[in-house]
Amino acid sequence: MSARQAAGLIRSGMTVAMSGFTLTGYPKLVPEALAETGHAQGLTLITGASVGDGLEGVMARAGLVSRRFPYQSNPTMRRLINEGAVAYADMHLSMLPAMLRWGTGCKIDVAVIECAAVLENGLVPTCSVGASDAFVSMADKVIVELNTDVPESIVGMHDIFEIGVPPSARVIPIIHPSDRIGLPYIPCPPEKIAAVVLSDRADDRPHFPESSPAAEKIGGHILRFLEDEVEAGRLPPSLGPIQSGVGAVANAVLRSLRAGGFRGLSMYTETCQDAALELLEAGVFSDVSTTAVSLSAEAQKRFYDNLDWFKQRLVLRPQEITNHPEVVRRLGLIAMNTPIEVDLCGNVNSTHVMGGTIMNGIGGSGDFARNARLNIFATESVAKGGSISCIVPMVSHVDHTEHDTQIIVTEQGVADLRWCSPEERAELLIENCAHPDYRPQLRQYLASAKRSGIGRHIPQHPIQAWDWYARVQSGGSMMEPQE
Amino acid sequence: MSARQAAGLIRSGMTVAMSGFTLTGYPKLVPEALAETGHAQGLTLITGASVGDGLEGVMARAGLVSRRFPYQSNPTMRRLINEGAVAYADMHLSMLPAMLRWGTGCKIDVAVIECAAVLENGLVPTCSVGASDAFVSMADKVIVELNTDVPESIVGMHDIFEIGVPPSARVIPIIHPSDRIGLPYIPCPPEKIAAVVLSDRADDRPHFPESSPAAEKIGGHILRFLEDEVEAGRLPPSLGPIQSGVGAVANAVLRSLRAGGFRGLSMYTETCQDAALELLEAGVFSDVSTTAVSLSAEAQKRFYDNLDWFKQRLVLRPQEITNHPEVVRRLGLIAMNTPIEVDLCGNVNSTHVMGGTIMNGIGGSGDFARNARLNIFATESVAKGGSISCIVPMVSHVDHTEHDTQIIVTEQGVADLRWCSPEERAELLIENCAHPDYRPQLRQYLASAKRSGIGRHIPQHPIQAWDWYARVQSGGSMMEPQE
Repeated sequence: MSARQAAGLIRSGMTVAMSGFTLTGYPKLVPEALAETGHAQGLTLITGASVGDGLEGVMARAGLVSRRFPYQSNPTMRRLINEGAVAYADMHLSMLPAMLRWGTGCKIDVAVIECAAVLENGLVPTCSVGASDAFVSMADKVIVELNTDVPESIVGMHDIFEIGVPPSARVIPIIHPSDRIGLPYIPCPPEKIAAVVLSDRADDRPHFPESSPAAEKIGGHILRFLEDEVEAGRLPPSLGPIQSGVGAVANAVLRSLRAGGFRGLSMYTETCQDAALELLEAGVFSDVSTTAVSLSAEAQKRFYDNLDWFKQRLVLRPQEITNHPEVVRRLGLIAMNTPIEVDLCGNVNSTHVMGGTIMNGIGGSGDFARNARLNIFATESVAKGGSISCIVPMVSHVDHTEHDTQIIVTEQGVADLRWCSPEERAELLIENCAHPDYRPQLRQYLASAKRSGIGRHIPQHPIQAWDWYARVQSGGSMMEPQE
Repeated sequence: MSARQAAGLIRSGMTVAMSGFTLTGYPKLVPEALAETGHAQGLTLITGASVGDGLEGVMARAGLVSRRFPYQSNPTMRRLINEGAVAYADMHLSMLPAMLRWGTGCKIDVAVIECAAVLENGLVPTCSVGASDAFVSMADKVIVELNTDVPESIVGMHDIFEIGVPPSARVIPIIHPSDRIGLPYIPCPPEKIAAVVLSDRADDRPHFPESSPAAEKIGGHILRFLEDEVEAGRLPPSLGPIQSGVGAVANAVLRSLRAGGFRGLSMYTETCQDAALELLEAGVFSDVSTTAVSLSAEAQKRFYDNLDWFKQRLVLRPQEITNHPEVVRRLGLIAMNTPIEVDLCGNVNSTHVMGGTIMNGIGGSGDFARNARLNIFATESVAKGGSISCIVPMVSHVDHTEHDTQIIVTEQGVADLRWCSPEERAELLIENCAHPDYRPQLRQYLASAKRSGIGRHIPQHPIQAWDWYARVQSGGSMMEPQE
């Protein structure tokens, strides 16, 4: 069927679920056709996580979307959400498929799934699984975009396991990150497939931020911290499967593992990017479990050229499994993510600037951080040339609470918050992590909060804390004016 | 050995872990002896969760404790924490035993465990397991308080399962709440037992708050909500195992299940109190899985008199298992907890008054709410005779983030926040849950927050939000003065 014919199956007001996770494995032709015809308005758009501009941007610019779940990272979509034009619910990525399967009130009319192959009993996704297994299972109709740009030999890399719905939910029998426990395809009865659209359109290539001296320093701090944990017997020499977010800091951290001489580690994560693929090729990782392989053009070529080698070492799972608390807790993950800001109590903001303006969303960071054996939040201590401190008195939005955060790292050093009281955490964060330029005013804030008398368990002074953001609004910087 | 001799094994600066969970199953004689001699100062005190005044109050009043994990509910201990005299880290209850076993830096010198029996290979706890299995496993020495007040026929009610440490952690094979998967005792080599102290001291009886018309209304709203969910096919007729916090609202909710004619349900929770025991006796619950049975004197007598009947229907597990994300997510729990306050974005404060003053702690509410199939936070819409609104612009402390909360209930009605944007949540909470006296000023706040221009995704105005607390500080009420 042509993309335009297939797009005709989608009508105004429908809930449409599309494949894709971290800019890979998303349909391109049906969204383009939807934008061209404009016949379907007011759509609810669900994806696994972030998708490329060819889907998200195209549909956002055409004004087709009125409601969006569970994550996005697109400038146009972000603007529409922050203008109040698109209603957005920012959800834990493990919860999206669960909430759909549990029948909590969101019904999928049409699923559009990019596939590398259509088998008799099901669909083989391309370079991400995301929540496509749940979408296919819960949708009334499925549109397949069969993409010949992806080698058919990717068949066998996916591992699709359906947990089932309570009271019939099953144990997820993953004991080691590389365990294959399911089928190499998403089960789909042929009668559910309403259209197959042929495509040879490649994904947009993700943008990889360049590293920086600060990111390298953060990588070095984390490496030394992990070595010390092993030395003290608090971690095994194999560390534990690594989960890593994306971005310059995340890449620097991964590369530090190689510099530290680690070998034979495992990765259990939601996205495998260039840095992780390189570590797999170099033997630093012996296996990678992920829900998406999101690569630069150069790395993608190596990946496609050696699919059989990678198939032995890399498994693509549904995000419901990669991010599942059961597996994350059992495997003993080391979760590494990048916050926007961290406050003196140890609360982490991962989603909002100045409290109200969404950036992307919480993604999988909550799934991983909450259930990991060890969680690390790593960021540069300042942003925007020093005018913003990433260590603040009180975060403007809480995504990870003081009960959940363990290790905070900046280029300045490491704060190990485990077993610490709020006051101890505040001191560690100021002296070990904050930029020296901000330490005096953070110390002053803490002293003032202790005196404020609202309660000494968590010393805080909300009015003074908000002054930090008010100064940004008025003068562009959190720095207090010098006398 | 006498309690005083046993207490002599504990020296200043030690980390002491004592059994007990929600005011039951804690040692009484060794703490009393420690208070009398006063020889051991600056102790770190760890328990499963809250313990009776005979432990917590006695040691707090004697000034023996300088550091406290992971939960408390005692007036003296609370005061010391809020004065900054005791350093407190308020932890998820599932995480405490895990953090100990993972070797994250807290080392237990002595464990003091109240037992109903000492067997050749291990210890049989009394009416709670809590984290005693982890304490015994990780401690250098164990002091047993063998309590003859608890019938020995309680042997067989406990089910102790050790998960192990990654990379050797095991699947927790609980498929149904009543499944027994482990041993009826806590394994303990005899040579680890440094003392056995005989006791016949009963637990302090917990205080059960009386019900109120508002609590009854909340119970009625939740009952109708659950019935509607079943009717709409969003829940099975068996609902899902019930987890319930403690207090007047929790009890009213449980009793509403009986009024609604439900039968054969399961409970999977951390505390079984009178209301739950009654439902088990009445057949509303066919089985109860818990880590503590904390009863009034009258209910305790029924329990002790019929231990063989209860042993077929009630299982006492470690808190590591009752609160474990793996089991909570697999079983599809309905988690019901009581917040201090809820804000318009859906964030919940369960721990702090006015941001800085701790009440008790997060307890298991995070373990359950985050991983449940359905979570419900239920509270009266106002406190202190109407001078405090429990629906506020921005909570003064975040324990459960907007990503985690689903259903909010007050005596006014129900707000179903699932799949809603922050602005939609705010409107639902104002119109369905807030007390009518506070609706005008909440509407005014929301309108002002939308105009404030900091970002429309989450409309918020932190300065105006904090005014609500400033009014409490200055005039004792959140209500705006009338013109």
